Amino acid sequence: MSEYLPGLAGVPATQSNISDIDGAKGLLTYRGYPIGQLAKDSSFEETTLLLLDGELPNAEELRDFDSQLRQNREVKFHIREMMRYLPATGHPMDMLQSAVACLGMFYPGQENLGGHGDLEYVHNMTVKIIARMGTLVAMWERIRNGYDPIPPREDLSYAENFLYMFTGKVPDPLLARILDVCLILHAEHTINASTFSVLVTGSTLASPYSVIPAAIGTLSGPLHGGANQKVVEMLEDIGSPARAADYVDERLTSKSVIWGMGHREYKTKDPRAKILQGLTEEFMRTRGGDINPLFEVALEVERVCEERLASKGVYANVDFYSGILYTEMGIPKDQFTAVFAIARSAGWLAHWREQLSDNRIFRPTQVYTGKQRREYVAIDQR
Amino acid sequence: MSEYLPGLAGVPATQSNISDIDGAKGLLTYRGYPIGQLAKDSSFEETTLLLLDGELPNAEELRDFDSQLRQNREVKFHIREMMRYLPATGHPMDMLQSAVACLGMFYPGQENLGGHGDLEYVHNMTVKIIARMGTLVAMWERIRNGYDPIPPREDLSYAENFLYMFTGKVPDPLLARILDVCLILHAEHTINASTFSVLVTGSTLASPYSVIPAAIGTLSGPLHGGANQKVVEMLEDIGSPARAADYVDERLTSKSVIWGMGHREYKTKDPRAKILQGLTEEFMRTRGGDINPLFEVALEVERVCEERLASKGVYANVDFYSGILYTEMGIPKDQFTAVFAIARSAGWLAHWREQLSDNRIFRPTQVYTGKQRREYVAIDQR
Repeated sequence: MSEYLPGLAGVPATQSNISDIDGAKGLLTYRGYPIGQLAKDSSFEETTLLLLDGELPNAEELRDFDSQLRQNREVKFHIREMMRYLPATGHPMDMLQSAVACLGMFYPGQENLGGHGDLEYVHNMTVKIIARMGTLVAMWERIRNGYDPIPPREDLSYAENFLYMFTGKVPDPLLARILDVCLILHAEHTINASTFSVLVTGSTLASPYSVIPAAIGTLSGPLHGGANQKVVEMLEDIGSPARAADYVDERLTSKSVIWGMGHREYKTKDPRAKILQGLTEEFMRTRGGDINPLFEVALEVERVCEERLASKGVYANVDFYSGILYTEMGIPKDQFTAVFAIARSAGWLAHWREQLSDNRIFRPTQVYTGKQRREYVAIDQR
Repeated sequence: MSEYLPGLAGVPATQSNISDIDGAKGLLTYRGYPIGQLAKDSSFEETTLLLLDGELPNAEELRDFDSQLRQNREVKFHIREMMRYLPATGHPMDMLQSAVACLGMFYPGQENLGGHGDLEYVHNMTVKIIARMGTLVAMWERIRNGYDPIPPREDLSYAENFLYMFTGKVPDPLLARILDVCLILHAEHTINASTFSVLVTGSTLASPYSVIPAAIGTLSGPLHGGANQKVVEMLEDIGSPARAADYVDERLTSKSVIWGMGHREYKTKDPRAKILQGLTEEFMRTRGGDINPLFEVALEVERVCEERLASKGVYANVDFYSGILYTEMGIPKDQFTAVFAIARSAGWLAHWREQLSDNRIFRPTQVYTGKQRREYVAIDQR
């Protein structure tokens, strides 16, 4: 019997130019640029174009792309009406998967996407999908609460406009900047399960409106997206910084998960977590007295975990701070993974384009362990 | 640089008990039973239960399962209304992906699907999805043509009821039996791209209403589903049996594809094609004079191809006859892949359950071929 590696762990499935992780050094690069530099100096719009095209754009290229994104935020009323007919209790990730698939009804697939395909189609659909992801997530938030969606505004950045459509208010500039950084940090992360989905579905030359829903479905699973929601629930459960040490010790003794700690790829602190910790501290200093007490619980949980776990290479990961920052922006917990999906649509579409440029349909084999050939038995003899 | 195999060709990605192909002998078995025996003596309902559970059911088990399928055909009016708001020009596969994802809005995912998971949930969702696939496809056919959907009838078999909802008429018994056989033949085929999608998306413990849309998206790509549509277009293009030989020779000379001929897995005739050829001939004998002339073109194309190509191991595959049989049932070409998806939902859900029973998240690696670490450059210096 031949062997197989469950989950294809460690098996190379593609080659890629998009991002790279150096787990030992705690370094994540997009197209060669360290994530810390992008978080500091870039924007989600610029980072998206970098991921898609491979190089940082010049001022004119960025202006063009940004303006295309701004002009493609509006979504046809059909999608709004389709959302109105679905139950308010439905999960935002299920709605996002449905809504992107429904958008595909308006844009026929192409016969010849392989090789270089139709570059104009590929570019236009990429822009449309990334621009509309934020609109779709915000629309569902409004509709499920019984309100009409708020039309997008072209004069706001991606992050600002998303929070405006989602909450009805133009956001505080620091929070908008923090969301922008969160979108940069979540835009791409090599070949994880949802990105792998993009390759598999894309490899049949399916339309991007079929590919992205596959990735959204994959991200929706509790083993993939969703850890930042668990972190916030955990912090709420702990309740005050004074209880952090006891909580952590209990979890360690019972060998239970401490949400937001540790990452399969990083042996040192997740570089994205460092950035978010810095932003969290900046936010606390700037906002002063009225901040969410969860921030203080989080800082204390992290301090305790670092004392207990740093020697084992276990540190806070990107999920540890993002959830409380989202809470501060007025985003409810069950929407966190949908915000992740908005950001990751950039990386997904970069991988989709890369797959098309040198495509081969995914068709691995199986190790058959079932019954050998046998004869059908009539039902009255079973 | 480490190596990778494009498309993971020949790389075992899982172990499975569900189906097996012996390409040299032209043998396909479901749970050990040759497809020819199932096509002759089983039904789509029985074959589905065999795929899901691993054994042929006894009479009581089959009656229970069939009755669950019959009782779960009805779809909530929300889905009908959602369909009404989408454009009649939208592709049936895009609608099917959307509609199954929308159904997920009504059925929350589960936290703990891994291992044995919640068996009752898994069984109930499996029944609901398989039962409703036919309803969804038929609903869209009616709605896109401007008619109200036809409610399902519990007194008809799966195949009969599908054709009844789709065309508005209880079908001719021979055509219903031919569709039943087509559903059996398309229900499962080891690890192809769409089934692999099921494993990848399912491995994050996503809900089955997220997993099946991923598979539908993958199947929708022109490299995967859709060959039977091309066959019918080709036969229409040829037009009469007398032109078949010249057409085939021209295609061979110009090294163009002859649709419906050859299959990566089979070195001899696709066992499913043999069964469909037999049914096609039976249908022609029974129906007499008024049959679609495409049948005669098809038989002649196959005869010519066998003369020219059999020595190279190229024979008709399952797509060669299914399209003209569907045409005879009143199914338009752009719905063929959706009918395939109805059938394949049985195999997809069998693989989903198998994945859950011994789950590990899919996370292969990549060979990074991109830029090495470089420094961010301010936009005015690019």
